[in-house]
Amino acid sequence: MLNFNFYSPTEFEFGKDTQFEVGRLLKKHGATKVLVHYGGGSIKRSGLYDEVIKVLNDENIYYVELGGVVPNPRDTLVYKGIKLVRKEQVDFILAIGGGSVIDSAKAIAMGALYEGDFWNLYDGTKATKALPVGVILTIPAAGSEASNSTVITKVDKGLKRGTNSDLVRPKFAIINPELHYTIPKYHTFAGIVDMMSHIFERYLTNTKNVELTDLMCEAVLVAIINSARVILKEPNNYEARANIAWASTIAHNGISGVGRQGDWACHRMEHELSALYDVSHGAGLAVVFPNYMRYTLDHDVDRYYRLAVNVFGITKGSDKKEIAKKGIDKLTKFYQEIGMPTTFNEIGASEKDIPILLKQLKINVGSSFGSFVKLTMEDAKNIYKMCLLTHI
Amino acid sequence: MLNFNFYSPTEFEFGKDTQFEVGRLLKKHGATKVLVHYGGGSIKRSGLYDEVIKVLNDENIYYVELGGVVPNPRDTLVYKGIKLVRKEQVDFILAIGGGSVIDSAKAIAMGALYEGDFWNLYDGTKATKALPVGVILTIPAAGSEASNSTVITKVDKGLKRGTNSDLVRPKFAIINPELHYTIPKYHTFAGIVDMMSHIFERYLTNTKNVELTDLMCEAVLVAIINSARVILKEPNNYEARANIAWASTIAHNGISGVGRQGDWACHRMEHELSALYDVSHGAGLAVVFPNYMRYTLDHDVDRYYRLAVNVFGITKGSDKKEIAKKGIDKLTKFYQEIGMPTTFNEIGASEKDIPILLKQLKINVGSSFGSFVKLTMEDAKNIYKMCLLTHI
Repeated sequence: MLNFNFYSPTEFEFGKDTQFEVGRLLKKHGATKVLVHYGGGSIKRSGLYDEVIKVLNDENIYYVELGGVVPNPRDTLVYKGIKLVRKEQVDFILAIGGGSVIDSAKAIAMGALYEGDFWNLYDGTKATKALPVGVILTIPAAGSEASNSTVITKVDKGLKRGTNSDLVRPKFAIINPELHYTIPKYHTFAGIVDMMSHIFERYLTNTKNVELTDLMCEAVLVAIINSARVILKEPNNYEARANIAWASTIAHNGISGVGRQGDWACHRMEHELSALYDVSHGAGLAVVFPNYMRYTLDHDVDRYYRLAVNVFGITKGSDKKEIAKKGIDKLTKFYQEIGMPTTFNEIGASEKDIPILLKQLKINVGSSFGSFVKLTMEDAKNIYKMCLLTHI
Repeated sequence: MLNFNFYSPTEFEFGKDTQFEVGRLLKKHGATKVLVHYGGGSIKRSGLYDEVIKVLNDENIYYVELGGVVPNPRDTLVYKGIKLVRKEQVDFILAIGGGSVIDSAKAIAMGALYEGDFWNLYDGTKATKALPVGVILTIPAAGSEASNSTVITKVDKGLKRGTNSDLVRPKFAIINPELHYTIPKYHTFAGIVDMMSHIFERYLTNTKNVELTDLMCEAVLVAIINSARVILKEPNNYEARANIAWASTIAHNGISGVGRQGDWACHRMEHELSALYDVSHGAGLAVVFPNYMRYTLDHDVDRYYRLAVNVFGITKGSDKKEIAKKGIDKLTKFYQEIGMPTTFNEIGASEKDIPILLKQLKINVGSSFGSFVKLTMEDAKNIYKMCLLTHI
């Protein structure tokens, strides 16, 4: 086991009707004037917006608002938010949404207290101050509700950059699984692939003797798969939504990966897919990850064997490689079962684009990437090519 | 799944040589004058005391010290600590030790900023301020390094009382598993029973549909059992000590029990054993818990069946009750294997004392207790009686 630092100070308020706790939580953190930050109209259609505004009014918490966050949140809205926060002397940012809204809120929280251009904070300069951020989570998967990271896109230069700071770890995260009933089917399951991938990136490690986190990773994966199958039939099943919502936090707040080196090669390869095609991150991962596993199988047959047995329920046996393969095939089948793409064709990608994907990948990662297996651009090409085929 | 609040803001610095990070962590939290609080001479014999003092000197952090904490930490030393902290204008309490030292540090941290008798804070009054507390953990098991709870014994009245406050959750906890090599064998394994019991108390629940935390509880139990067996042969096996050290935190920081009602009946029944006999909490739990399980088996055969299959590796079958029984017997055998007592006789308890145990239990819990099964004093008597027998 490697040395590690684990720090997750966010207070989670989890369960039915917890959005009504927002006033109490804001007051606990001394909020007097809040920026309510959100995306499109879904929180208005669902009634959540009205519920939150009513709490703020009832509790005499002054607020201003800024909607319009889009997936891959943009610097342009961050600048607008910073200006608003300064003008109105906002002292707390409340993000209502998923990863994009939370990331945008974090950028505003740091940028408002930074004298220069906030983009510097995504370009090497470390933030020294930030306004506190709180979250009402409407889409589980990204894990931003408990993380110290934020990714922003600089529109005019087409740049997408992330930064990390404990200053922007949310003070609280309200997670009401009932709010997730109305997430469209595709996004629900793309989110599920995303959270499973967060576990896989940690599970595929060369660090030895991390029995506890190995077992925890497997436990979270089994819980996600079982609950996903329930949601497939009953989108409004509270218990399954609740297990998924908490699993997404556990998958990415770090506790599943302490003491081990993570990989993250698939996230890098998928990033180029969602940059080039109009495909969600989770859907892209559903295509890339099983093929990455097939490609790296020989690197650690024992690890893939244990995944096959402990997570995918394949019967133990002496031909470990064959059993490991069966486990990966079962992952592909599971993604198909939940309506996710598993080939390039299904996401509008084609063989002729592979050189473009590789060119961009090289710009972003250099000549090699990944730690479970150190991949070259040749490896990346081979894995992308595998995504052209149906393997089962 | 029940609604829950989860809050664990402690920063964990985990791994080899992490005690040398204490200066950096103290400075991060603005400590200028520290109370170094500890127990007996073990940290001096091991060299840890000298290492920490050297860091404080090197970093120019002023300190005073107070040793002498004993198991079941006493109010008398807390009063002494409060006086010292006020006189020396200490602004940070550093606990070096296990649960008792940390609990004593928490009492001093609250008491120093409370105008009245600190015992009031253990008698219904809520603390509103506390000095920050940091921890270097020398004995895993109690979980106090990340909890909001503290238990103190009032010597002159023979009272043992606990209280909870988020104000005393440690700011940081340094966990170096190498420091645990020298824990005596008996205490190592009593600690392991204690952490397993923390999981059992959460696992035995009537809350339905908590798949994720069920699986996580099972994962942590399996990891503990596997690592315990390694430590039995190789007390200085770093990886096994590391898995155990982190498991003890996971077992009790709340993450294994979110969204479900816990039980805690066995902790209540054991409390009377360690109060009456000179037996450690973990050893007492090794006697009580398997018998509690035997007694409550019929209440939820499915739960005990799943424990037997998923944790104790008993082969699935149609006679669930028989398999569940085998699982409980395997727990007893495991406790015997690690040198823990499993009968009253082994801890010096006898049948004639049962009325005394029951009398004290009734004073402490009233006429009934527990939530998995609501136990009466008659039930408690039956369970204590079962502890007289060898069941396997």
